Parts: sequence; C-alpha cells; structure tokens
Amino acid sequence: MAISFDRLRVDAARLRQVALTELFDADPERCHALAFRHGPVFADLSRQRIDLAALASLIQAARDAGLEKAIEGLFAGAEVNVSERRPALHTALRGVGPADAVRRAADAIERMERLIELLRHDPSSTFGMNRVTDVVSVGIGGSDLGPRLLLDALERRSRGLPRVHFVSNVDGDVLQRLLPRLDPGTTLVVLISKSFGTSETLINGHSLIEWMQRHHGGNRDAALRQFMAVTADTDRAATFGIARSRILPLWPWVGGRLSLWSCVGFAVALAVGPGVFRRLQQGAASMDEHFRDAPLEANLPVLLALVGLWNRNLMACPSHALVPYADRLRLLPAWLQQLDMESNGKSVGPDGRPVDMATAPVIWGGVGTDAQHAFFQCLHQGTDVLPVEFIGVVRPTHDFDAHHRALLANLLAQGAALMRGQSTEQALERLRDSGLHGAELLALAAQQTFPGNRPSTTLLLDDLEPESLGALLALYEHRTYVQGVLWGIDPFDQWGVELGKRLAEQIEPALTGAPPPAEADASTRALLAEILSRQDA
Amino acid sequence: MAISFDRLRVDAARLRQVALTELFDADPERCHALAFRHGPVFADLSRQRIDLAALASLIQAARDAGLEKAIEGLFAGAEVNVSERRPALHTALRGVGPADAVRRAADAIERMERLIELLRHDPSSTFGMNRVTDVVSVGIGGSDLGPRLLLDALERRSRGLPRVHFVSNVDGDVLQRLLPRLDPGTTLVVLISKSFGTSETLINGHSLIEWMQRHHGGNRDAALRQFMAVTADTDRAATFGIARSRILPLWPWVGGRLSLWSCVGFAVALAVGPGVFRRLQQGAASMDEHFRDAPLEANLPVLLALVGLWNRNLMACPSHALVPYADRLRLLPAWLQQLDMESNGKSVGPDGRPVDMATAPVIWGGVGTDAQHAFFQCLHQGTDVLPVEFIGVVRPTHDFDAHHRALLANLLAQGAALMRGQSTEQALERLRDSGLHGAELLALAAQQTFPGNRPSTTLLLDDLEPESLGALLALYEHRTYVQGVLWGIDPFDQWGVELGKRLAEQIEPALTGAPPPAEADASTRALLAEILSRQDA
Repeated sequence: MAISFDRLRVDAARLRQVALTELFDADPERCHALAFRHGPVFADLSRQRIDLAALASLIQAARDAGLEKAIEGLFAGAEVNVSERRPALHTALRGVGPADAVRRAADAIERMERLIELLRHDPSSTFGMNRVTDVVSVGIGGSDLGPRLLLDALERRSRGLPRVHFVSNVDGDVLQRLLPRLDPGTTLVVLISKSFGTSETLINGHSLIEWMQRHHGGNRDAALRQFMAVTADTDRAATFGIARSRILPLWPWVGGRLSLWSCVGFAVALAVGPGVFRRLQQGAASMDEHFRDAPLEANLPVLLALVGLWNRNLMACPSHALVPYADRLRLLPAWLQQLDMESNGKSVGPDGRPVDMATAPVIWGGVGTDAQHAFFQCLHQGTDVLPVEFIGVVRPTHDFDAHHRALLANLLAQGAALMRGQSTEQALERLRDSGLHGAELLALAAQQTFPGNRPSTTLLLDDLEPESLGALLALYEHRTYVQGVLWGIDPFDQWGVELGKRLAEQIEPALTGAPPPAEADASTRALLAEILSRQDA
Repeated sequence: MAISFDRLRVDAARLRQVALTELFDADPERCHALAFRHGPVFADLSRQRIDLAALASLIQAARDAGLEKAIEGLFAGAEVNVSERRPALHTALRGVGPADAVRRAADAIERMERLIELLRHDPSSTFGMNRVTDVVSVGIGGSDLGPRLLLDALERRSRGLPRVHFVSNVDGDVLQRLLPRLDPGTTLVVLISKSFGTSETLINGHSLIEWMQRHHGGNRDAALRQFMAVTADTDRAATFGIARSRILPLWPWVGGRLSLWSCVGFAVALAVGPGVFRRLQQGAASMDEHFRDAPLEANLPVLLALVGLWNRNLMACPSHALVPYADRLRLLPAWLQQLDMESNGKSVGPDGRPVDMATAPVIWGGVGTDAQHAFFQCLHQGTDVLPVEFIGVVRPTHDFDAHHRALLANLLAQGAALMRGQSTEQALERLRDSGLHGAELLALAAQQTFPGNRPSTTLLLDDLEPESLGALLALYEHRTYVQGVLWGIDPFDQWGVELGKRLAEQIEPALTGAPPPAEADASTRALLAEILSRQDA
C-alpha cells in the first residue's frame, strides 16, 4: 500500500515557510537529533527542511503503509517482485536471508574463488592459457556499473596482473580501442548476462570470439576455452559454446542492478582478491541486519528514503544530486542513477493502478571538488531548489594531508553555503571597497546574493575500506526498496526497457537498405533516409 | 531584454492537449519542416511537442527580445559579459570576431605549436629533459572538462607518446594513483588556471613540484623546468616559479568553460597534433559563421535554444537529458552540464532584477546504449516527462559494422518508442498467449503500457572527424548563449561559486584542531566534531 501524504501536508506547508537557519535557531540541537549512524556510516539530515515533528509524521505514515512488513517480507523471501512473481534475494548474496538462497549464493562464490585460484596458478588446465595477463568483463547496465564502481573504488587493493577491462557499449569503438592493447593468447573474456540474451553483450562476445579465433588459426573451440560466462541461463551459455565448468550461476531472484555482490563481480574479485570481496560483502551484511532489525526511527535506509520522499513529494523537487567528495567514488552517481531510476521510474503499481504521486526523481551528480567548478553555480543561484547529497570520507587512503583537508573543508563549506546563503546586505558589505555605487553597486550586489535555504544531506564514511563501501552500497539498495514500497510500485521489474529493444530489432535491417518496417512512423523513416543519404558521403 | 512568453502561452496550451503522433497525422511533412542542417550537423526537432506556428511565435518572441542584436554584439566584441564589463570573445579563438582578439589568439596558438615542436624534437633546451614520455594536464572545471572530452573523442588521432594524464580533483587519491605510473625525469606538467589562483590546481601543482624536486635531489629550479603554465595572469605564474617562456596566455575575455579551443587544449594539441587541433577550430568557426549569419529561422543554435526554452518554460520540464550514441562522446554530458549550468544557473539579471522565469534546467545524461540499461526505464515509464537529446554519428570510425548498425537502430528506436508509446490494448495483444487472464492480465498489461508523447531531439553528425566535433561543441556554446540572452541573465559570470570557496578557506584550519570559525553554524560545528572524533579511530 502506497504511503499517504495527507497528514504530512500540514507539516510541509509549515516548513515551506521557515528557513533552515530559523530551524537551527529554534532548535540548536537538531544537528544531533537529526544525525544517525550505523557502523562506518554517519548521516546528517539536519540541513533538510524538516523537523522532528515532521519526521515523526513521516515515519508514522510509512508505518501505516506497512513498511515494517515489507522489510520483513524482503528478508523472508516473500514475492516482493510482484509483477514477475519472485522474491528479491540480493541480501542472500552477502549471507542474509532465506537459508536456501544463502547456501546457493555461497556455493557460487566458492566456485568463483576456485576458478580464481585456477586462473592465478594453473590457467592452462581450465582456460588453455599458460598465463592470463588481461580479463575483459563484458556486460551492460547491472552487469557493468557495479563492477566498474567497485574496481575503481578498491583499485589500490588490486594485485596488478591480470589487468581488468570493461566492455559494455555496443559501439564498436570500444573494441576498436581495446583490442590493440590486448594479447589474444593471454586474455580471458567473461560474458555477463542474466538472461544470456542481452544483445549488446552477445554482439561484443561474438566479435571477441572472432578476434580470438583469428589468433588460433580459425579454431573456434580453442578461442572459446578463453571464455567464461556468468548467467542464470546456463543452457543458453552452453549452447553459445561455453563449457559448463566455466559458467558461474545467477538466479532469477537477483536483479541485475543488485547483483554486484554475486559472480557478476568476478573480475573485481580476481583483481582485488577474494578476501577483499568478502569484506565488501560483510559490510553490506551489516547494513542488511541494521535495515532488518533497527526500528524505523533509527533505520538509516528508511530515514534517507523518507527524506527523499519529503523532497520529492512534499517539497516538489524533481531531482536528487549525489556528490561524493572522493575521487574513488566518481562512478557512484552513475551507479545510483541506474539503481534508483530503473527501480522506481514507474507510474503503475503491481495491481495495474496508476500511482497518484511522483516517483523516482532524476538522479544525477558528480564528484567533489570537480563539480564545484561545473554545476554548483546552479545549485547556489539557479531558479530551482536542487537537493544535494554529499558524501565525505573521514580517513584518507593516501598521505597528501593538505589535499584531504582541502577536500573536507570544501565538502563542509558547500552544505553550509547552500543553507546559509548570502544576503544582499552581506554582499553590499563585501563590495564596500569596490568603488561602485548607485544602481551599479546594487546590481552587482544582487548578483552576489545567495538565497540560501537549500537543503542537503551529508553522509560521512569513516574510511574507504571494503566494509564501508559495502555498507554504503547496501544502504542505497535498501533506500531504493523503501521508496519503491512507499510509492506503491514494484522496484524489481523493468518493463519500460522492452519497447525500445523491440523497435530496435525491427529497425535494424533498414540500415542496410531493407525497406523500413511497416509500422515505422514518419519521423523514423525520415531519420533513416537521412542516415542512408550520408552513409557514403 | 528577456523574452516574453505572453503570446506563446496560447500555443503551449494548445500543444499540451495534442499527442506527438497526432501532430504527425495532421502534418506528415513536419519531419522535414522541422529538420535543419548546417555542415555536418543535422537536427530533427519534429519529435518535440511543437508545431510550425508555435515555432514561428517563438522565433518572433526571440526577435522582439533583441536576439539578433545580441548575436551581432557577441561577434562585434560588445560587453556581453555585463557584470564583469567584458566582451566574450571565445569565437576569436577559432578566428571569428574582432581582429585584435583574433590576432592575439592566433599568436598564442602559434606559440603553443612552437612549444609542441620543441617538446617533440628538442625537449632538453626548454624543458631540461632528454625525452618526454608523459604530460600531466592540471586544471579543474573549464580547464579540464573540455580537454578531457576532446582527447577522448579524438584519441585515435593520438600519436602515441607522450601519454596525457589529467589531474583536476584536489583529492590526493588522484596523485596517489597517478605518480607511481610516471617517471619524474620524463614528465612534463602543465598548470592551467585563468587566474592562476585556483586552489585545487595550485595544491596539485605544489605536490607535483615536491615530487619532482625529490627526483632532482631537492633542486627546485630543476623541477620547475619541467613545468608549464596556461594562464591570464602571467605575473602570478612567474612568481610561482614558471619561466615566462613556458607560460602560454589566456585573456579575461575567454571564459574557462569556453576555453578548450585555446592553449588550455595544450595537451590535446600535443597528443593529436596541431593539425588536428586546427581542424577542430575550423569546424567551430564554420558553426560561428552560421550562427552569426543565418536567419533565426534556419539558425541551428537558435532553434535548439528555443526548443530548450519551450520545454523548460512552457512545458515546465525541469531537466534536459543528453544521450550521445557514441562511446567517444561519453564525456559530452558532463561538459555540457558545466557549460549550461554554470552559464545559466542564475536568478538575477545584470541589472540586479530577479528573472521571472525558470533558467538553466538540470543537464544530465549518459552514453547510448549503456544508458538504455540504466535510466531509460524512467524516461519511458516514470511519472515526469524528461526531454532527451540524442546524438548519433552516421559514419563509424571502426570496422565493426554490425555494432554500428545495432547502435544506430537503438538510437532511432528510443526516440520512436518515447514518442509512440504502447497502449494498454497493444500490451494486452502482446500478452494474448501469456496464459494470464482477469485482473492479473489487466495488471500486467497496465505495467507494460507506455504513455508515449515524450519529446526528444535527434542530432546526427556525419562523422566524428575533428571538424564535426568542433561544429557540435560550438553549436552548444552558442545555444547556451542564446538561452542566457533570452532569460535575461549574464551567461559569462559565475558569482555563485564564490561563497563556498570563501567558507572552505575559513573552515579548513579547524580540520587540524583549530577552533571553528566564529561564524560557523551549528551544523558545520557538529560535522567538524564528528570528523575529528573519527579521524584517528
């Protein structure tokens, strides 16, 4: 049952009239009352345009909507993926959830670890190579963004060889750039596709086989020995030509965008070592247990979800910016964008009825401090209020102390500036010695005025160890689930990607001169004609 | 003078009631009437919820607002950057504009080319190195995003050595990762900062000097010989220790976010060769002339700008997604995000009066086909209408023909799917053999329904040659200018980034235990305490 905002509108109307700084004046303790921690993750919600009364109303509304039961159901293996009649057991990947799924997930990780051992110490037996210098991880969307993020974040744990490369886009430029840097005699390819039917992954896979086959004098079997697969459809991968001993499992009960903890992370586990990968899972497991067990009032994923709903549905903010102040989390906004927008970018509930509220906002962002020199002008002085979530890391992973101080000082300063702003009087004061006066002075002061009262959340991680990263990513996974539940939609399906796929298949033959498909619209026909007319120019 | 939307509201009200497919039914020729080309750039606006009458009204409103004069003024060197009392002469960087600026820009490029020659053939004379294997380009925001984009897009033109690395973020992890891969004896560092006061760039610069100094047994002068600068404040760079012979100029009349065509692109010009860099400039110059000379009715930057205003101000869409179907344009959304949101993320006109309309939308996006597996679910079935701009490249730069066909077919299919949608009846028809019936069937059909009528623009580039890329980037620069003019703001200043910078300087000492600044708010104090308490855990 979707959340009802009826009783919250009064709170929202009240709080729309109050500046954040006034909230602090009225209750200086709110920076503690609205701060929460689990393990290495600290969340400061005090710079949101909310107060304790409104938060309590939000929690009550979530409780009334059956959130506690929905959380219980997730962990108990209920069919929370209603439209596909399946449970969503991604927490089992880190050992939390129904015993059977936990066991199957653990077995898979053990198989993965054995393959990694073989690969490192005896690659000829299984992969037909004396040594493996490079691994190409081929997948797209959920089979790509998570592993890329993990490897980028944990790179300093990497053991050197083999090098890892990711291939996702069907654009041939990806292979065009990559292949000259690889030796086909020492390269392993991992094809990752839950259905083993993802067209991009199969096209890239076929081109990689051809490339390797050329190296093996046309011997396709020799080429295929250097291929592995991670898939829920073992038969399809086997038909493709990959030996079952080199196929690692997935299951219908893990969504692609929640799968980085599984063998989808093969290349990451290989690079950083299975021990580091397990520490990542442990960090996530700790957040799972917190999410399962903590009361809503102290439950980090729930609280962050509610603040998101507050901004989206009661403060009418259509976007949510994520700005990690950590270069190694550079890919986090793109990962969260997929997680959230693919999970909750929906308008219809599992019962087929349209939802009567706005669902997933646009998730976007960038890395601090880079983003300060990119879009922060608009955060501070644009016409729209754009809520921001900052992430800081307390303990650096390097010895450049002055850099780290500057990084954290900027993080703190941006949230403060967004909240406090700068009045025209303050701007005038700062322009006192400018030599300007009259209309010119006033005009410049107006342009140097910051409205303030712009909300932000600040998350602090103690460090960027694998456990902290695991906890952070699981926090986001659960936040997304809570929001889906409260919006009354199924966060685990993705029917909205099907239509485009089907039309692409229909259109493709026309690009080699076949007649356009009968149902092609006038616009598609005109674009096809334009493309064909310029192809050989 | 800002545009007046008064006469447009009638058109907008009318068009909000009409589906895109109905517009095509009423006027099948609109795919031609709303298609425009200049040189290698083709733009299809027919999938926007606009018609010829509304477009004519928009053009008239822009004309009434003095757009033609504003375009003339830009090229004539008028003080279009009102708040800073300066012209904006970025077009002079490619040879279009006032003669004096054109000459100075050309002189600088020639100096840059001579340095590149020296660097390639006689690096010991100027840089004290026998050979240069690596160049580190240090800059942030406008001194970073453009060059990164260019090199990524033109990489196949790269001549191999020296390798180019970009350093922007003040996060010490950037150097921590990079330095072990560099030989300080064969590395050149280029510090890029218009003011030579950008704190991130100076902090990174200092750490790089220290690193190089260690290599030279503490000899700072020897280290500094391996440094160059690109700046408008030559004195400041000289005081920093960089010889004037190795300082390339910038000028107050080029904004950072419009500077990639200048010596800011040094590392790019070095990597791909000055000839390729000049071809890029020529492509931009051709777009400049088109923008300057073409009537508004056929003027690509103007038309794209007007469609943007239409969506932002009359259709109330608060974001704009950019999705290039070209892996080599992967960085384009981030570059455009900076260009647009820093230029037009403002609420006050140069006269100090608040604007009475929404300005810069959130610019976000990703690369196709990857993005289809990330956020496209939300584009198709989310609760908000999210306008998208697609970019396709007709002629590939590789031989993977099947990949390219799939890429283009997907591009065409997505725009068609967004426009056409899929009715519940069509969904039911497709579920005919599903074995479902009754409420269950209807519920699933509802979830497989696509509302359609979602607008998109499709740009097609003939190819990804330097000329096409230059034309595309100049097109966006001019679009941003037109929108700034019509919103009645100064697109060339960025007062909104100053407050955060100042607060960061105040806060920083507190991170080593100094008392927090007197004016620090309660929230900042609490976050500081939290950080200090976890620092040594």
